[in-house]
Amino acid sequence: MATHHFQPTHYHRAIGSHEPVLRISDGDTVVTTTVDNMGQDAGGTQVTAGGNPQTGPFYVEGAEPGDTLAVQLDRISPNRAVGYSSSVIAANVVDPCYVRELPERVLAEWHVDNQRRTATLNKPATKLGHLTVPLAPMLGCFGVAPPRGQVISTETSAEHGGNMDYPGFQSGATVYFPIFVSGALLHVGDGHAAQGDGEIVGTGIEISMEVEFTVRLIKGKRIRWPRGENAEYIFSAGNARPLDQAVQHATTEMLRWLQEDYGLDATSASLLLGQCVKYDLGNVFDPAYTMVCKVPKAQLQQVIKGG
Amino acid sequence: MATHHFQPTHYHRAIGSHEPVLRISDGDTVVTTTVDNMGQDAGGTQVTAGGNPQTGPFYVEGAEPGDTLAVQLDRISPNRAVGYSSSVIAANVVDPCYVRELPERVLAEWHVDNQRRTATLNKPATKLGHLTVPLAPMLGCFGVAPPRGQVISTETSAEHGGNMDYPGFQSGATVYFPIFVSGALLHVGDGHAAQGDGEIVGTGIEISMEVEFTVRLIKGKRIRWPRGENAEYIFSAGNARPLDQAVQHATTEMLRWLQEDYGLDATSASLLLGQCVKYDLGNVFDPAYTMVCKVPKAQLQQVIKGG
Amino acid sequence: MATHHFQPTHYHRAIGSHEPVLRISDGDTVVTTTVDNMGQDAGGTQVTAGGNPQTGPFYVEGAEPGDTLAVQLDRISPNRAVGYSSSVIAANVVDPCYVRELPERVLAEWHVDNQRRTATLNKPATKLGHLTVPLAPMLGCFGVAPPRGQVISTETSAEHGGNMDYPGFQSGATVYFPIFVSGALLHVGDGHAAQGDGEIVGTGIEISMEVEFTVRLIKGKRIRWPRGENAEYIFSAGNARPLDQAVQHATTEMLRWLQEDYGLDATSASLLLGQCVKYDLGNVFDPAYTMVCKVPKAQLQQVIKGG
Amino acid sequence: MATHHFQPTHYHRAIGSHEPVLRISDGDTVVTTTVDNMGQDAGGTQVTAGGNPQTGPFYVEGAEPGDTLAVQLDRISPNRAVGYSSSVIAANVVDPCYVRELPERVLAEWHVDNQRRTATLNKPATKLGHLTVPLAPMLGCFGVAPPRGQVISTETSAEHGGNMDYPGFQSGATVYFPIFVSGALLHVGDGHAAQGDGEIVGTGIEISMEVEFTVRLIKGKRIRWPRGENAEYIFSAGNARPLDQAVQHATTEMLRWLQEDYGLDATSASLLLGQCVKYDLGNVFDPAYTMVCKVPKAQLQQVIKGG
Repeated sequence: MATHHFQPTHYHRAIGSHEPVLRISDGDTVVTTTVDNMGQDAGGTQVTAGGNPQTGPFYVEGAEPGDTLAVQLDRISPNRAVGYSSSVIAANVVDPCYVRELPERVLAEWHVDNQRRTATLNKPATKLGHLTVPLAPMLGCFGVAPPRGQVISTETSAEHGGNMDYPGFQSGATVYFPIFVSGALLHVGDGHAAQGDGEIVGTGIEISMEVEFTVRLIKGKRIRWPRGENAEYIFSAGNARPLDQAVQHATTEMLRWLQEDYGLDATSASLLLGQCVKYDLGNVFDPAYTMVCKVPKAQLQQVIKGG
Repeated sequence: MATHHFQPTHYHRAIGSHEPVLRISDGDTVVTTTVDNMGQDAGGTQVTAGGNPQTGPFYVEGAEPGDTLAVQLDRISPNRAVGYSSSVIAANVVDPCYVRELPERVLAEWHVDNQRRTATLNKPATKLGHLTVPLAPMLGCFGVAPPRGQVISTETSAEHGGNMDYPGFQSGATVYFPIFVSGALLHVGDGHAAQGDGEIVGTGIEISMEVEFTVRLIKGKRIRWPRGENAEYIFSAGNARPLDQAVQHATTEMLRWLQEDYGLDATSASLLLGQCVKYDLGNVFDPAYTMVCKVPKAQLQQVIKGG
Repeated sequence: MATHHFQPTHYHRAIGSHEPVLRISDGDTVVTTTVDNMGQDAGGTQVTAGGNPQTGPFYVEGAEPGDTLAVQLDRISPNRAVGYSSSVIAANVVDPCYVRELPERVLAEWHVDNQRRTATLNKPATKLGHLTVPLAPMLGCFGVAPPRGQVISTETSAEHGGNMDYPGFQSGATVYFPIFVSGALLHVGDGHAAQGDGEIVGTGIEISMEVEFTVRLIKGKRIRWPRGENAEYIFSAGNARPLDQAVQHATTEMLRWLQEDYGLDATSASLLLGQCVKYDLGNVFDPAYTMVCKVPKAQLQQVIKGG
Repeated sequence: MATHHFQPTHYHRAIGSHEPVLRISDGDTVVTTTVDNMGQDAGGTQVTAGGNPQTGPFYVEGAEPGDTLAVQLDRISPNRAVGYSSSVIAANVVDPCYVRELPERVLAEWHVDNQRRTATLNKPATKLGHLTVPLAPMLGCFGVAPPRGQVISTETSAEHGGNMDYPGFQSGATVYFPIFVSGALLHVGDGHAAQGDGEIVGTGIEISMEVEFTVRLIKGKRIRWPRGENAEYIFSAGNARPLDQAVQHATTEMLRWLQEDYGLDATSASLLLGQCVKYDLGNVFDPAYTMVCKVPKAQLQQVIKGG
């Protein structure tokens, strides 16, 4: 149960079986940093090419294909005071005929205050003035090496995780990834100080982070899509286009989960989901969109007690 | 500002320019009842054919194409103690290869308790036992007569509203519809005692309702898609397949709203949405899916004060 | 087996259970005319509002829900020398980021020559000069009254047919529609002198037509989507968005057809389709897109002989 | 203009910057072989793991990112007499509710006769008997190394090509790929003796091939999606889900092509496509679907002469 302090020296813009930067064990904690989506670090220095550069990969001893990696997000904390966002809704998120109405893109600058837990719009000067939103730090892109020797761009997402841009990937959540290669090879990056649903301007408030996470290895447990849980919900993430297919992936994964781990049969799982399920939207900007299927722990508790 | 008590004698399974059952005025309140999706009333009697039968239409005096109809949902209250739901996830909501794993459909029965504000699973007997969910009564299908002489099935939805199955259409919300014909011709029906996001089993907890609503006519205000608001949010609904297109409709409508009524220019509206927008899922079961785009009033207040 | 010469006096912009203009019998032929999509007739006179106005409906004696209506397209012939097309690709058919590159829309005028079987671009003056394309007259929008009292806009399509814009609906083809109401209530309109696949500029070469068709009533034969055949193929049409769903509808209907009428079991039908199927694209412009699934009669003949 | 005879000794199941097997020059011809989708060679021996194994990559001297690689398919010839196909329509190609009706999958065996140019169903014994289809050998999966260090599974496709399963990729066609890495790194594989549109059973008639192709390097020519031409058409391929997006990619690429290389302005290109475009369906089975946008050379000749 060691704690590793790891300072990255290089980054990856695609997730795959790259040379590990650190070998860690089941139960270990890693404290590290991530650069922002443009490759700028805590000091605002460009240290690598832009495009959601990833810190890692971290090799988890004993992890093998068919196992599951649990990543507990202990702390995701902006390590500088300035974040950036885009200022124009992505063309694919509005009606095709409305695209011509979209404004020109400018880079917006936000002041991020870890004490007050706020992000405040600095510029450009608009009618929003110094709009303030609650700080809600999250990881936009993280995941494990995909199967079949693939190396997948950090612009997109799939079964291995990747650029899901789901605000629920914040401190306090535990995320489960299917493991496809020996060592799992966890990558982390693309921190957002806050983000609206869908990442519809193509960015959150992009910022470098200090990230602390703890890994747990679940041997012999096979899952197919990223899963997670927090205090209130268990959830599964589906990544695909159109969103309809992301819904299918996430819902099917949740049906499997309820049947495999909560002792429900197919009818019980359906009935429960039918009246209790919630869906959250990850990004609708990247090549693959993300939809998250959630079940409240309150209802699950009833089921377990009742059972 | 009259209050009309209206007892329906017949129902419609498609929304269009049917003969009005009542003529009401701007500011009037209607107290009426709806049958459940199968056509059964408060006494459990089959009074009309199934398929989301609608009460109405109500003719609003002075309403003309190009105006907007505001419908304040004052009260949506189950008027019997038994509701029904399906028990199997719809085939279109799971991975195509998983369809064969779905169980057979049975009709589930729920005990609805208006006092305790709960719905409790009565049968079938499953591992869920007497699962209890919070009561959250809503209208699954309602809307106004569509343009161009169309008569649109209550199985689906479009610009005129219809079968959106959005849990946010509950008591306390005000819904805005574009008006396409003289009198607007409001239809209401398809009450759910509760419903998971997406209506993924194809039903909520289907039940007959007592419904009270108040109409307001906004002359000369043209909108394109249903809008709404509640204590916390303003929201717009897009209805289409795939969900990607529903997102486009809802987001475009919200961009228009922010610019027309909140004094924002295109860049301000984009910036605000980018970091503050929320999306909710209506149904992913019907021919047209529904996505709802929301902006928190807390952030809007900042903008208005700042402006 | 009468031949009716019918001259329309009014038109419909939505397909539904309108008052029939003529009652015809199984085997009868109708010779009539259609106006162009903008409501202009053979003389170029605006005789009705634009939007794919339909001639009809024609009531087929003895037709009842659950039967099938066969419509043999005997002749579709432009009855004037000028057709019109749009000049800009629809925004939904290009990459969202490319929409801003699209030119302004102008109305293009084509000279249609029935003798030479050509359509020649007249204006605007462009680098295309007097581009000439082969004449290939077709019906863009036609169908029967839909079920459930619906009245469906001629902008879109569904199980009843409607605005499918499939170039295969030309002289020599026979089209089969499911019948949903007594009399079937056939509507015809929206002639194109020629059209590229997908109707991607939102129009073909729009023109008024003389249309001759012969109906046949197939009692007790239930189909779910429009079907057709010509000298080379049998085909089924699916109408929906996204195109993926149109593919599903068309393919499923073809699987049913092969099993019901050609004596194939599920494996034979799959094997045959797998290596012999062809798909054609109807429109990708309207609210519902159209995909057509075709099987060559050459292969079907082998199967029938072999069987 | 050398001709290289290359006998592969290993294969790749993902397309990326693997070690080149051969360095060739602009104008060179390669004669090589491919194994079938299951990894079996001309002798029916399993020589590598299944999953569309690729021969190559071939390094083209002087090729750099931003150039285009032309691959002339000189000959694609089955080098054994037995091919295999699946026998069941993929679950994603039929209506979700119809999935339960699909039969069990069996492997079908076809006798391939290069002399008679036919493929004849050998087994299973079905009502199809010995169904014979015309031989139409094609490459299902081929392409160049993608950008950003990506390695992309041969199950799917993107800008770099990959598993497009388009029957038009046959002898006589020339295919153009955007080049993303030095040397281009061309991979070829997944031969089909014949295939229906859409590869809707998930396979063509899968067979090992002798393949002969000639490369040409077009320096300084940047394209974004695979393009091609044959005697009758120029065409562009878009790879994405849903099909709607594949249509967008292919159509946008064709608009660019017409404007960059055929001297058309935006209006001319739109007008031409509007009434002359054809679309072909590549696969609707893989993670990314494929749509091909075609313009007849007959019409292009008019434009060039007129210009």
